[in-house]
Amino acid sequence: MVLTSRGEHVSDPEKLSSIAIEKAVGNRLVIGTSGFGSVGYPKTMPKYLAEEAASKGVKVSILTGASAYAMDGIFAEKRVAIRRYPYQNNPVMRKLINEGIVEFMDYHLGEWPFLIRYGWLDEVVEGIDLAIVEAAQVLNDGFVPTGSVGAITAFVEKARHVIVEVNRDVSEEMNGIHDIYIPQPGEPIPLRNVEDRIGSPIVKLPKGKLLGVVESSGIDVGGKPVEPGNVEKAIAENLLQFFQKEVGKGRLPENLYPLESGVGAVNDAVFKAVGEAGFKGLKAWTEVIQDSLLNMYLEGKMDALSATSLMLSPRNLERVYQEAEEIKRSIVLRPQDITNNIELIRRLRVIAINTAVEVDILGNVNSTHILGKNMINGIGGSGDFSRGAFLSIFITPSIRKDGKISTVVPLVTHVDTVDHDVDVIVTDQGYCDLRGLSLRERARLIIEKCSHPIYKDQLWKYYENAVKSGGHSPFDLEKAYSFHLNYIRNGDMRE
Amino acid sequence: MVLTSRGEHVSDPEKLSSIAIEKAVGNRLVIGTSGFGSVGYPKTMPKYLAEEAASKGVKVSILTGASAYAMDGIFAEKRVAIRRYPYQNNPVMRKLINEGIVEFMDYHLGEWPFLIRYGWLDEVVEGIDLAIVEAAQVLNDGFVPTGSVGAITAFVEKARHVIVEVNRDVSEEMNGIHDIYIPQPGEPIPLRNVEDRIGSPIVKLPKGKLLGVVESSGIDVGGKPVEPGNVEKAIAENLLQFFQKEVGKGRLPENLYPLESGVGAVNDAVFKAVGEAGFKGLKAWTEVIQDSLLNMYLEGKMDALSATSLMLSPRNLERVYQEAEEIKRSIVLRPQDITNNIELIRRLRVIAINTAVEVDILGNVNSTHILGKNMINGIGGSGDFSRGAFLSIFITPSIRKDGKISTVVPLVTHVDTVDHDVDVIVTDQGYCDLRGLSLRERARLIIEKCSHPIYKDQLWKYYENAVKSGGHSPFDLEKAYSFHLNYIRNGDMRE
Repeated sequence: MVLTSRGEHVSDPEKLSSIAIEKAVGNRLVIGTSGFGSVGYPKTMPKYLAEEAASKGVKVSILTGASAYAMDGIFAEKRVAIRRYPYQNNPVMRKLINEGIVEFMDYHLGEWPFLIRYGWLDEVVEGIDLAIVEAAQVLNDGFVPTGSVGAITAFVEKARHVIVEVNRDVSEEMNGIHDIYIPQPGEPIPLRNVEDRIGSPIVKLPKGKLLGVVESSGIDVGGKPVEPGNVEKAIAENLLQFFQKEVGKGRLPENLYPLESGVGAVNDAVFKAVGEAGFKGLKAWTEVIQDSLLNMYLEGKMDALSATSLMLSPRNLERVYQEAEEIKRSIVLRPQDITNNIELIRRLRVIAINTAVEVDILGNVNSTHILGKNMINGIGGSGDFSRGAFLSIFITPSIRKDGKISTVVPLVTHVDTVDHDVDVIVTDQGYCDLRGLSLRERARLIIEKCSHPIYKDQLWKYYENAVKSGGHSPFDLEKAYSFHLNYIRNGDMRE
Repeated sequence: MVLTSRGEHVSDPEKLSSIAIEKAVGNRLVIGTSGFGSVGYPKTMPKYLAEEAASKGVKVSILTGASAYAMDGIFAEKRVAIRRYPYQNNPVMRKLINEGIVEFMDYHLGEWPFLIRYGWLDEVVEGIDLAIVEAAQVLNDGFVPTGSVGAITAFVEKARHVIVEVNRDVSEEMNGIHDIYIPQPGEPIPLRNVEDRIGSPIVKLPKGKLLGVVESSGIDVGGKPVEPGNVEKAIAENLLQFFQKEVGKGRLPENLYPLESGVGAVNDAVFKAVGEAGFKGLKAWTEVIQDSLLNMYLEGKMDALSATSLMLSPRNLERVYQEAEEIKRSIVLRPQDITNNIELIRRLRVIAINTAVEVDILGNVNSTHILGKNMINGIGGSGDFSRGAFLSIFITPSIRKDGKISTVVPLVTHVDTVDHDVDVIVTDQGYCDLRGLSLRERARLIIEKCSHPIYKDQLWKYYENAVKSGGHSPFDLEKAYSFHLNYIRNGDMRE
């Protein structure tokens, strides 16, 4: 690893954290870090910073690209976190958020770097004191990121100081996989294809901001691939039927349009099914490249992949390093304000496939809150993709907890994606093509095709009753949350 | 008016409507017409078509740009309408929609032409049989639209046949005010400034599609300007305070960024206040140009206006015709997929000011449904602008019906704009800057600053109770609609 000297800077993390904590204004420190999909977040500084903050009574606001599992755990366990944006997935942090101890707000991940640049948080946190970024290499005028890009360009631009962590376990071969482009006000983003490169492989570091460079170690690996069960397979099969219908009608080309998909077992099953169905020449314009996607690429089923995070098994990560030269031709890691940019999602006609916690019969989607109260992770990119997509598809099993929960309900308890932005819903029961339907038509189709048989009668009863009192929307103020209230009272949504 | 012959086409509206109705497939006719802001809709063919359809038992699906008040009345009164998209404002049509007789769905107005082109309605209406467009002039290869552009480019492209109505009351001086550009898949939209012209003044008409050209008459005028009352003035004053704070902090430039604003008395008051506050060099990137905007332009306070519809008083319309040459330099009428395009709204850093029917303490907005059931008009452009904007602002009086209704409620009865897309709420009571706040912080600020004093205690009680049971969101499943249920039972939301 080449560590070009940039003059005087500190490399001892303990000393650095002490200097950093002194920069806190009124015992409040605001940090913006690398990290997306729990990949590429800082691994050395957080533990020193959290300890120093705890001992000095300093409270920390933590801004990231998206999830940074282990880092969140450190700040949460030390009880120094007071604010957290825009996404998280750590159980300790989540608990503090749901107890109202940490103030959290989720934001559309594609908008988040814009909001940072707009000075959108200035009234609340008065700017960013410190950016901490993980790098594969430090160069004279900047650095090479590691496995994710996230929001680092915005943090480096807005932060008063920057600390770079050079991770010795990340191959220098990562140099060249990133395409760093910063959207300019008033200018179109000049990207036309999934594989286009429009920026630089390097994140520029403004002179004078660098506080220090420390070493770190550790590779980020994705969760173990889960073998899809029958429910996941049924969802994938139903989605496939929809794709095949659309290709047959000429509304989708034979190689589809670029695919976006969330993370998880169902999404893995979807990609697997698409791959096995004989689709060829596919491309992915998505947030996170998981094993399933990389495997499809290596098997020649995917022609190009674009994302902001590389969440792979150690074996696949090794393959990326080994075959880096070839891979950099058609795999690109970009800032999240590019991967999740509605301008580009629309231009590329992306097919968005996202997971719902629950859907309602109007076609609204809840992606974030359990029973309307407890935050799970955050809205993530589902709002970006569903709004800009050529097709906005939401997938979910029709029931959870052995049928105690129906994911198809009269009204979701928190709306993350509105009816207007949901084109197709797919469950293990079937798919509902909602395009062009009125709210009443939507409701009938969703109940008929997507709900589980054990909830059908109960949903029909709600619908019939709601329609009886008239109105455009089959909505009943008195009974809208009857399913959820049943669950709270009896542990089961069934009557 | 030059009416260039295009070979054989019919000019008798009665004969034409008979030919058109014969094109109906299975007694279903699908028409896509010009019209936005009840300006520029066809005035001759609808009454002939509605009559012919009624006598032949043909049902009509009506697609427009947005509102087309008088035309909707004709189809609704003849009871021939079965479907209507994506926005309407006619009481007879609205009644049929809310009775479930006409299937209606509102769509984001900026997405609507994309959906048409994507073949998004094909499963429901099997393509568009007939486009009917109002023109100021017919030329060899196309036509000059009148006071609005709306979705005509998509309709002309997708429809099997086209009828052009040449309105003899519209000045030929309109030639040159329009800028017709059709977004191309894979290509950036090359627009950088409010006043840029990137297309053609003419809507191209594909050869062989023209069924006929008929004459029509009548000018479209906007509603009479309403003198703002105290509530409207207070809202405008509060919004102004917010703008001045932001300019003071350097987050907004002294001439603000391009403004978007909905239609109505409050919005008029807002523009008036902004004009009187001494802001100069303003620009508007909006849907509809009303008198207030044009007056500011004529007074030298606005430098450029871009919209898809010109909804003016007869006097101001006359001024546009008289001073056309000068006006065409800085006033542009565009298709709604350009004016409401999120790509451009974000690029131009538009400040979006839209009206809410009700807001909730989480910051969700209902723009469409009364008590969650009855459709008013449709979501319009509020979803486009709030998503792409530099600042997304929603305005509403804090109470309606002499205090029987609070517009600030625990939970809106229909979510059109989600919490993530609402930055600032302004009522006559004050403004709430929600940027960077958690849901609990949002709730406290909204109750404190934006709700009416007669509802404050009741809202606090709901909030305290919701927080008691924990969770990230101050949400109470049992009581979420208690305000609305009070209103249904007692005619008053108060306890």
